[in-house]
Amino acid sequence: MSENGVVPRAKVLTIDTMNPTVKNVEYAVRGPIVARAVELERELSEGMKKPFAEVIKANIGDAHAMGQQPITFFRQVLALCSYPELLNDSTFPDDAKSRARRILQSCGGNSMGSYSASQGIDSVRQDVARYIERRDGGVPCDPNNVYLTTGASDGIMTMLKLLVCGEGMTRTGVMISIPQYPLYSAALAELGAVQINYYLNEEKCWSLDISELQRALDEARNHCNPRALCIINPGNPTGQVQSRECIEDVIRFAAKEGLFLMADEVYQDNVYAEGCQFHSFKKVLFEMGPEYSDTVELASFHSTSKCYMGECGFRGGYMEIINMDDDVKAQLTKLVSVRLCPPVPGQALMDLVVNPPQPGEPSYDNFIKERSATLSALAEKAKLTEQILNTVEGISCNPVQGAMYSFPRIIIPEKAVKEATDKGQQPDMFYCMKMLEETGICLVPGSGFGQKDGTYHFRMTILPPRDKLQILLNKVQEFHQKFTQHYS
Amino acid sequence: MSENGVVPRAKVLTIDTMNPTVKNVEYAVRGPIVARAVELERELSEGMKKPFAEVIKANIGDAHAMGQQPITFFRQVLALCSYPELLNDSTFPDDAKSRARRILQSCGGNSMGSYSASQGIDSVRQDVARYIERRDGGVPCDPNNVYLTTGASDGIMTMLKLLVCGEGMTRTGVMISIPQYPLYSAALAELGAVQINYYLNEEKCWSLDISELQRALDEARNHCNPRALCIINPGNPTGQVQSRECIEDVIRFAAKEGLFLMADEVYQDNVYAEGCQFHSFKKVLFEMGPEYSDTVELASFHSTSKCYMGECGFRGGYMEIINMDDDVKAQLTKLVSVRLCPPVPGQALMDLVVNPPQPGEPSYDNFIKERSATLSALAEKAKLTEQILNTVEGISCNPVQGAMYSFPRIIIPEKAVKEATDKGQQPDMFYCMKMLEETGICLVPGSGFGQKDGTYHFRMTILPPRDKLQILLNKVQEFHQKFTQHYS
Ligand SMILES: Cc1ncc(COP(=O)(O)O)c(C=O)c1O
Ligand SMILES: Cc1ncc(COP(=O)(O)O)c(C=O)c1O
Repeated sequence: MSENGVVPRAKVLTIDTMNPTVKNVEYAVRGPIVARAVELERELSEGMKKPFAEVIKANIGDAHAMGQQPITFFRQVLALCSYPELLNDSTFPDDAKSRARRILQSCGGNSMGSYSASQGIDSVRQDVARYIERRDGGVPCDPNNVYLTTGASDGIMTMLKLLVCGEGMTRTGVMISIPQYPLYSAALAELGAVQINYYLNEEKCWSLDISELQRALDEARNHCNPRALCIINPGNPTGQVQSRECIEDVIRFAAKEGLFLMADEVYQDNVYAEGCQFHSFKKVLFEMGPEYSDTVELASFHSTSKCYMGECGFRGGYMEIINMDDDVKAQLTKLVSVRLCPPVPGQALMDLVVNPPQPGEPSYDNFIKERSATLSALAEKAKLTEQILNTVEGISCNPVQGAMYSFPRIIIPEKAVKEATDKGQQPDMFYCMKMLEETGICLVPGSGFGQKDGTYHFRMTILPPRDKLQILLNKVQEFHQKFTQHYS
Repeated sequence: MSENGVVPRAKVLTIDTMNPTVKNVEYAVRGPIVARAVELERELSEGMKKPFAEVIKANIGDAHAMGQQPITFFRQVLALCSYPELLNDSTFPDDAKSRARRILQSCGGNSMGSYSASQGIDSVRQDVARYIERRDGGVPCDPNNVYLTTGASDGIMTMLKLLVCGEGMTRTGVMISIPQYPLYSAALAELGAVQINYYLNEEKCWSLDISELQRALDEARNHCNPRALCIINPGNPTGQVQSRECIEDVIRFAAKEGLFLMADEVYQDNVYAEGCQFHSFKKVLFEMGPEYSDTVELASFHSTSKCYMGECGFRGGYMEIINMDDDVKAQLTKLVSVRLCPPVPGQALMDLVVNPPQPGEPSYDNFIKERSATLSALAEKAKLTEQILNTVEGISCNPVQGAMYSFPRIIIPEKAVKEATDKGQQPDMFYCMKMLEETGICLVPGSGFGQKDGTYHFRMTILPPRDKLQILLNKVQEFHQKFTQHYS
């Protein structure tokens, strides 16, 4: 009984009566370690004494948060679209104004405040299609196959949602790489689909072996209905860039085994290593000829969040679907209409990404300068990260060929493993928590992405500014040595 | 066999092998009639002859698309946040600049391009909390109970997702009003939850009778587990504004029957009729004393899309949750983190809505002028719509007390009903299609929202500019007379 004599009612919604699939969701990139980092920041700001002066968040691919500057042209156009009075302002370049006018003309009432078509603004989808054609050396792209999304996350969720059906032995299974970007495992858990793990080969620079795909698939067929294969290229968290041959093999495998391909290509501009190049699944598929290009079902995903722009907060993205059954496509269009439309500023930004300043336009030179500066800084930091980490005994790091992360393997002494296990913690979570408390550096433990049993890793972004990254890497080095000593 | 001698592979994803719950989704606001309207627009633009010169879309609550102008202050701040260089531009008012600075300071790296916390930017949630406290006469609001969302749609979907569990007889049932906003039926279909219909009372101005709630609930208990009750106030599509007494009764009912309350209050500023006033569920709940305010679980939803701002394209919104179990709240926070964050420009806009210019600030007068102009124009159009429609024989329309729609009842002659039924069409879909083809006016048939068997309606927004609305209403009148004559 409460103070006022009323028998408290039981809650309607409790942990025991809530959606069980939601309970199964895990999302390490924003897990307990990040929560603790936020707490530490608050404690620091309240004057509490810590062995460090600031928390450095290297846990998430959030470029602007790490100080990367936005592309001037993009932001000028967004400002013009937000407040069209500025179209009369002579300080804005003409190409920015003409882009803004074109976007506004495609908006209901010439306002970004109108709902767009649920599939996305027509003219933006057309620009996306032309971008894909340029990128893929002329392979045609139909704007009707392009869906704008609320970040790539939304597109991936939506595609997975379409694919899930069946119960028990016939429940949809989806193959994902291990290590993976945890959006995939979270989405599969939420949808109640079966997660099928295939392991990337750490010894061969996180490459993908077809024999491993086969093993995973064959095993899975004993307990579910595998229907889709997800690939992240360039890879998160592992930073590898797939070779053309590998992509061909994957496509052949998908064709042979009857799998729907999902290609997460949000890092398509983030390729740093010499000899590496981004090949889109779409392009490779079409170059393999009609036996494949007429039949293999593919969805590929892109985003405004990564590459050189790093505009995560705008939640822009698109997906292109190839060889999707027409009836299913109609269902997809209906499904996305329930949420009305993706954010229009994100759509506008996606439009700028696929249709940036062209040679001869007033903003071209500056655009190229800004883009190159960001990409070459990333390339340099990729190298620096690999180099420094590999000098540390007990840490070994594959080359960061692309994307924005290193995923080094760490040796955790037996005694530390035991202490962690006694606490009911994953050993690399224990390691990363200790690192956070002692150095203020926030990393994500490898267990959040999946890894081979008995191996330990952490994921660290290469996004901090060069000088800060250097400090960070030195601190990691120091911490690892102390930790190893302490537990040896 | 295809041309090149290859046996075409069967598709992985077909209408028979896709997610069956997705197939059950319907969403009338963007259904076949809208698709046809878009086609007609294209045909007109290609010079095809039609009995009308333009398509008028009165199918969706999309204010800017109908010519409503954005609030200047809001757009100035958004431009400043998009392109902070403008903070040096002396033509922007100081209050816009200080708002922009405050928002940017809350963004990682001072950029709207950073991911925010998944629950939303802290300072925005604080502003939302203060807004709710002001609105509700001082009832306290904890910012930790506020979640920013990607439009209200996203919040509603997320809350329903948490609530769904069980199978067969124990499957979660959710009570929704009929007529309803079809997001609800679509979300329930997608989640595989049981939709429990309670009918609003058209004879009493679409009011809600507790006896009807009880009837619906008692029936539903025979085949599912009713757990939540959704209310839209002011109502879409029906335009009613609930009395305080009615809200109290609903809360008592929810408490007695153990139902989680979901209050969709996106039209909270859209109240036009004399004697009507918006009462938030939160405020009424707290004024009913601790017996209720300590126990009844409530989620309420707001959006940047409606009211006087009508900023649909930005996809801003929030939900406040009351009395939610702590463990469930932790699960909610985890769940929203998978999609990373709501769009930051939408969060910024939500911040401006809850923290608009204050008396004494340079933008105050203009803000008030713009807001009042929009709201009084809507009030006038609400009246005009009701008046003209009620002059038509065979159409009867309840007062549009609030929101943005009229939902008149139409009498469809027997012969027309038969012709529609023979075609496998709903009679009011048949009616609206004919109206579209003959007049260019795009409405949504009542069957898209649900209605009592044997009654027919359409939903029409009151958003077109006054002169256009007048023309539209006259055309509807004319069409209805011709249609009735033709089928009598
Ligand atoms: C591989 C991969 N896919 C998808 C996403 C989702 O990005 P967004 O939803 O911001 O576009 C990310 C974000 O880090 C990612 O790394
Ligand atoms: C009653 C109601 N709820 C929710 C929404 C969703 O609005 P949004 O997702 O744009 O915030 C709408 C849109 O028309 C509505 O009418």
